[in-house]
Amino acid sequence: MKIVIVGAGFGGLRLARQLNNKAGFDIVLVDRFNYHQFQPLFYQVATAGLDASNISFPLRKVFQKSKNVKIRLAELKQVIPAENKIVTDAEEISYDVLVIATGADTNFFGNEQMARHAFPMKSTVEALQLRYRLLQNFETALTIKDPAELQRLMNIVVVGGGPTGVEVSGALAEMKKYVLPKDYPELDFSGMHIYLLEGGAKTLATMSEKSSVQSNKYLQGLGVEVLTNTLVKEYDGINVTLSDGQFIKTGTVIWAAGIKGNIPNGIDKTMIAKGNRIKTNRYCVVQGYQNIYAIGDIAYMETADYPQGHPQVAPVAMQQADMLAGNFRLIERKANPETQFEFVYNDKGSMATVGRNLAVVDIPKPKLHFGGFFAWMIWMGLHLMLILGVKNRFFVFSNWLYNYITYDQNLRLIFREFNREAGKSPNARS
Amino acid sequence: MKIVIVGAGFGGLRLARQLNNKAGFDIVLVDRFNYHQFQPLFYQVATAGLDASNISFPLRKVFQKSKNVKIRLAELKQVIPAENKIVTDAEEISYDVLVIATGADTNFFGNEQMARHAFPMKSTVEALQLRYRLLQNFETALTIKDPAELQRLMNIVVVGGGPTGVEVSGALAEMKKYVLPKDYPELDFSGMHIYLLEGGAKTLATMSEKSSVQSNKYLQGLGVEVLTNTLVKEYDGINVTLSDGQFIKTGTVIWAAGIKGNIPNGIDKTMIAKGNRIKTNRYCVVQGYQNIYAIGDIAYMETADYPQGHPQVAPVAMQQADMLAGNFRLIERKANPETQFEFVYNDKGSMATVGRNLAVVDIPKPKLHFGGFFAWMIWMGLHLMLILGVKNRFFVFSNWLYNYITYDQNLRLIFREFNREAGKSPNARS
Repeated sequence: MKIVIVGAGFGGLRLARQLNNKAGFDIVLVDRFNYHQFQPLFYQVATAGLDASNISFPLRKVFQKSKNVKIRLAELKQVIPAENKIVTDAEEISYDVLVIATGADTNFFGNEQMARHAFPMKSTVEALQLRYRLLQNFETALTIKDPAELQRLMNIVVVGGGPTGVEVSGALAEMKKYVLPKDYPELDFSGMHIYLLEGGAKTLATMSEKSSVQSNKYLQGLGVEVLTNTLVKEYDGINVTLSDGQFIKTGTVIWAAGIKGNIPNGIDKTMIAKGNRIKTNRYCVVQGYQNIYAIGDIAYMETADYPQGHPQVAPVAMQQADMLAGNFRLIERKANPETQFEFVYNDKGSMATVGRNLAVVDIPKPKLHFGGFFAWMIWMGLHLMLILGVKNRFFVFSNWLYNYITYDQNLRLIFREFNREAGKSPNARS
Repeated sequence: MKIVIVGAGFGGLRLARQLNNKAGFDIVLVDRFNYHQFQPLFYQVATAGLDASNISFPLRKVFQKSKNVKIRLAELKQVIPAENKIVTDAEEISYDVLVIATGADTNFFGNEQMARHAFPMKSTVEALQLRYRLLQNFETALTIKDPAELQRLMNIVVVGGGPTGVEVSGALAEMKKYVLPKDYPELDFSGMHIYLLEGGAKTLATMSEKSSVQSNKYLQGLGVEVLTNTLVKEYDGINVTLSDGQFIKTGTVIWAAGIKGNIPNGIDKTMIAKGNRIKTNRYCVVQGYQNIYAIGDIAYMETADYPQGHPQVAPVAMQQADMLAGNFRLIERKANPETQFEFVYNDKGSMATVGRNLAVVDIPKPKLHFGGFFAWMIWMGLHLMLILGVKNRFFVFSNWLYNYITYDQNLRLIFREFNREAGKSPNARS
């Protein structure tokens, strides 16, 4: 059985590993990047606490000894279900079974101006770009005389009060408190504002009431200005305009307010649910097809417990991958189709971190909530466990230990390209 | 005394540190990057052995507690000696004393085709770009059917048999031996060639005869094809044409064949010596000026021992910085000008590494030469000592230890930007 898996995120990579060196399977894993990205820590790359390499694991390293997994660094251009093949920017690849695990990307909800000026944080490279912009703004601020423009450059607006928005604004508040005044003694940081804007009534709305309230308290304690029930209308690169007509001057908008599935070309449009997700049955089979599956953030499966689809989080993707690996093995050994497993999500809980010694953890069964130092330790331990590779774990741990002891995220490095001659960029090499 | 230092390489950074918190000095350190680059290890970044951050140290971190050193992230556009000021892309900065420590960049000797297609390695970012290209070529190779084109993509040509060329070709040969066949089991590496082309009669020509011969032996042992007395005429992106008319098909040319000084605009053209260096007297004062100094790779000082100028290496830059710091302190306390120190270079030796357990070391006084494991240990120890910062030292050491034990440079990560929409690059954000 030749299985093509598109996307090496939590779902796609897990599936490939589960089928690695299993007889009867011939796997091609396709990704736009040559590494697995550990999304939960993008915000620490953006705020200079971790290196991009610390949370990126080369795919070829994972499958170095594999007999049946091939990797292709390519972008999916088109699925052609009628011919059982996909077209990438490099070649065509045929399949017996296709698994779409392309995940989700930032959703600007059609606001082109926002898409042009705001910074998303849905890939390692985007996190790096955000880091460079944050640092560059303070460098530029040193040469600005106009107080209003100076304040604008230093202000930061985070849009979206989910885990990503909460985590990045907390980390920025700590940078403002511990790092920036030491790095830029010439600047006055008392006038710098970090705003967290949330359209709904509370931050961390998907977590428990206790976690929501507590994280809000933590954020305020760190000096983040949390504005709930606040919708953003526009951002022209200078002013963020709110729906009530007020505006905030800022040089940096971080957009963590929504995601949408990366639907490949060629999938029947009627199979697309809200949020750009692909409708599947309880076995992750895409409706209308026999041999095309979707897992993770891109998959939309309605169940009694989740009538609006499952949350778009790593555990769902990983559990769907496990379910699928099991079912593929049943199919391979021609077992009775009725023995296949239906997907049932086992929600082990959720967590978010705000700053040093500050995190919130919810566990559903038994119903528990932790906050503070203990929750923060759980958060760190779990993330260390989930990161791929002993070396990455060691380096993340070393960086965290260093940052904790020194109160210093010291990867404040701008590795942008420097064009010696106008128009000449190393990326543009023939 | 207000001193503006342009360039935070080995010379400029050393000078700023020597004058840090010294009464009577007001320092502005200007650099295009916000970090000090540890040039000797660029080749390990390019070959995925070290992270860019491991050899980059944030300048603001160095001077966090400084009372008299300001940092400006800017590009020098023009020196205006008549007005005692410099113009950068961000602002004008006036000075009492200007120190030019702008170093040297790659010299393509006017060969525009080469400049367009070949990869230089004179900055961290260039080293990263080279890493991405090397890895991308093997990814592309997997989709190539034509054997000649396949071989072309896999071949690598290094031009220039100095320390950089020797070190990078040795590291590439080890990748070919230990890493690439495991990462790309679908490719046949027996047909892959790594050429080191040197125009002169031998590699490492500035070192002792013993070191030159020994390093050549090491290279050949690792499978590098060393071609001496071989001049490169052209490279069109497909073929390297040699001056004897022969050609080598290759997808990657690494150019380590020459450097030229980064002369700022506004310096009197008659003060420029060969190799684009600025003529100075024995005190590093630029000829024709009173209060403009040049140190390091950019400075050209003729002495009895060095009638063609000093070698363009880190120790010269650092010793010139020390000399200058001493003289500035004499000037500041209005000492008799005759008490100022003339520059005398104390050559402590030179070294180069070829691969694991393989290095060569020359020490002039007493005249000594080492090779092999012992030389390799000296090379590592000295480089660890010279790297700025305890954390960087620890991470470089950890990476080296990991690479040594596992025979694996595992930072094989392509962090290039991915343009989801044509023409949209995160770098191009307004």
